[in-house]
Amino acid sequence: MSEEKIIDGMQYGFVPNRHLWYFEYYTPGNCGIFMKMNKHLYSAQSKYQRIDIFETDFFGRVFSLDGITMTTEKDDFFYHEMLVHVPMFMHPNPKKVLVIGGGDGGSVREVLKHKSVEKVIMCEIDEMVVEAAKKYLPVTASKLDDPRVELVFEDGSQFVRNFKNEFDVIIIDSTDPTAGEGGHLFTEDFYKACFDALKENGTLSAESEDWLYDGAWLRLAYSRIKKVFPVTKLYLGFMPTYPSGMWGYTFASKGIDPIKDFDPEKVKNFGEELKYYNEEIHKAAFALPTFLKKELENL
Amino acid sequence: MSEEKIIDGMQYGFVPNRHLWYFEYYTPGNCGIFMKMNKHLYSAQSKYQRIDIFETDFFGRVFSLDGITMTTEKDDFFYHEMLVHVPMFMHPNPKKVLVIGGGDGGSVREVLKHKSVEKVIMCEIDEMVVEAAKKYLPVTASKLDDPRVELVFEDGSQFVRNFKNEFDVIIIDSTDPTAGEGGHLFTEDFYKACFDALKENGTLSAESEDWLYDGAWLRLAYSRIKKVFPVTKLYLGFMPTYPSGMWGYTFASKGIDPIKDFDPEKVKNFGEELKYYNEEIHKAAFALPTFLKKELENL
Repeated sequence: MSEEKIIDGMQYGFVPNRHLWYFEYYTPGNCGIFMKMNKHLYSAQSKYQRIDIFETDFFGRVFSLDGITMTTEKDDFFYHEMLVHVPMFMHPNPKKVLVIGGGDGGSVREVLKHKSVEKVIMCEIDEMVVEAAKKYLPVTASKLDDPRVELVFEDGSQFVRNFKNEFDVIIIDSTDPTAGEGGHLFTEDFYKACFDALKENGTLSAESEDWLYDGAWLRLAYSRIKKVFPVTKLYLGFMPTYPSGMWGYTFASKGIDPIKDFDPEKVKNFGEELKYYNEEIHKAAFALPTFLKKELENL
Repeated sequence: MSEEKIIDGMQYGFVPNRHLWYFEYYTPGNCGIFMKMNKHLYSAQSKYQRIDIFETDFFGRVFSLDGITMTTEKDDFFYHEMLVHVPMFMHPNPKKVLVIGGGDGGSVREVLKHKSVEKVIMCEIDEMVVEAAKKYLPVTASKLDDPRVELVFEDGSQFVRNFKNEFDVIIIDSTDPTAGEGGHLFTEDFYKACFDALKENGTLSAESEDWLYDGAWLRLAYSRIKKVFPVTKLYLGFMPTYPSGMWGYTFASKGIDPIKDFDPEKVKNFGEELKYYNEEIHKAAFALPTFLKKELENL
């Protein structure tokens, strides 16, 4: 077995001749993570992407698209709580929510912890992802059959254009911009459509990749959202199984400020179980390391 | 080549038959990170541990002990700034500092950015690490020849017992407790000796491992330090090339509180270049995710 073959295998995400190890390759860094797999539960090529779900001892079930880790049972709540609760708690009374992407269901699960919510539309391009999640990822998909949830299988970047002044909160839970059709959810045009689909008090969050390897996407997402929304702030959270472990999210709104207008009492009295997010984490997440602050100042 | 052989290779840190990839194996998680190596610059077995320094395109030079990544040129400042500046800024006027471990020199480099410092003793057990760092890691070792620095090559857990009421700040920049003699620097006895060696206004920081894979060490370090010091607080920082990317540090003092007694103006007016740490990061680092807060409450 030549070295060349191994490198090819890694770039594909799964080393074909060593099916017991999962390798995720972070291309810009010539590096990545690996995990010992116990059992490959599901593997399919949909119209949009390769879908894999497998079992590990440590991370539980792991879900990947095009060889890029999306969710593990171990740390899904790090990501989903940070993506969802920042815009949800910043809205005074969120009733109608749009989740774009988020096929594993983790974002919907978190949205529904807010009692005020009457309706969540989840627009996921790939129906096969949702079917696989319902079957193999109960940890994230548990609330997808809730009566308040409407599932739409369309390109979210187009779907959002059907609405004006409709949603209280929009959550952009996209895949990696380089995987499948993920890039559609990183255009200025799309962010403009989100702005229009939000009501006056509307808040939005968007997963914004990592700084270390994919700094270009983070800067792009942030600077494009900033062109569209009067209030735009990047925040960070730990996310062990995503590249670098330092994950970027963008908060945006038509006027609500995520620090000045934040009410910690609302979080303290929430009454639902949260494992990562709390009132101190909310404020802390907007404190950026100096190198990142400087980069954003120049955008 | 059988699967068994590959697994053995990974556990050792370097896959012998694929010298162009560095694998760090996180044993409790059956997982790890890998990096493409360009060139192996240095490899030696000292009395205490295996030392490796190699070059990569993305991370620059990488330094590992017993196959565990200690420093990369790309992200050394994430770790060293968080370990050093929290206790240094909390001390009203740090003149005499003890660094225990820290052989690559990164902690000393950061300590010397504080103008008040008259003397730093760095006590590193392994002289070969310091020699290798001076030769191959100028990014961290650049200040080891400063006249204010005294290098001592002894077991820090014993060396600190020579002092009573001597230091303003002690920084425990240990290797992994499972590597070399690292475990010595995680005992209650040792923390008690640090307490005695500190002056009345003394502050201390200790690297405290990660929660996801090595939670036992983090809890142990924190709870033992807490038994000894009246003020003990865990804080967190991003650290991409360490396990999980979420790195724990413990701050301790004889009375100074790292939040209530913190003066952000001191940091704003520092006048030295810092790339990660700033006054907002200082406060944010003490905000812990709920799962971790709960664990610490029970210790």
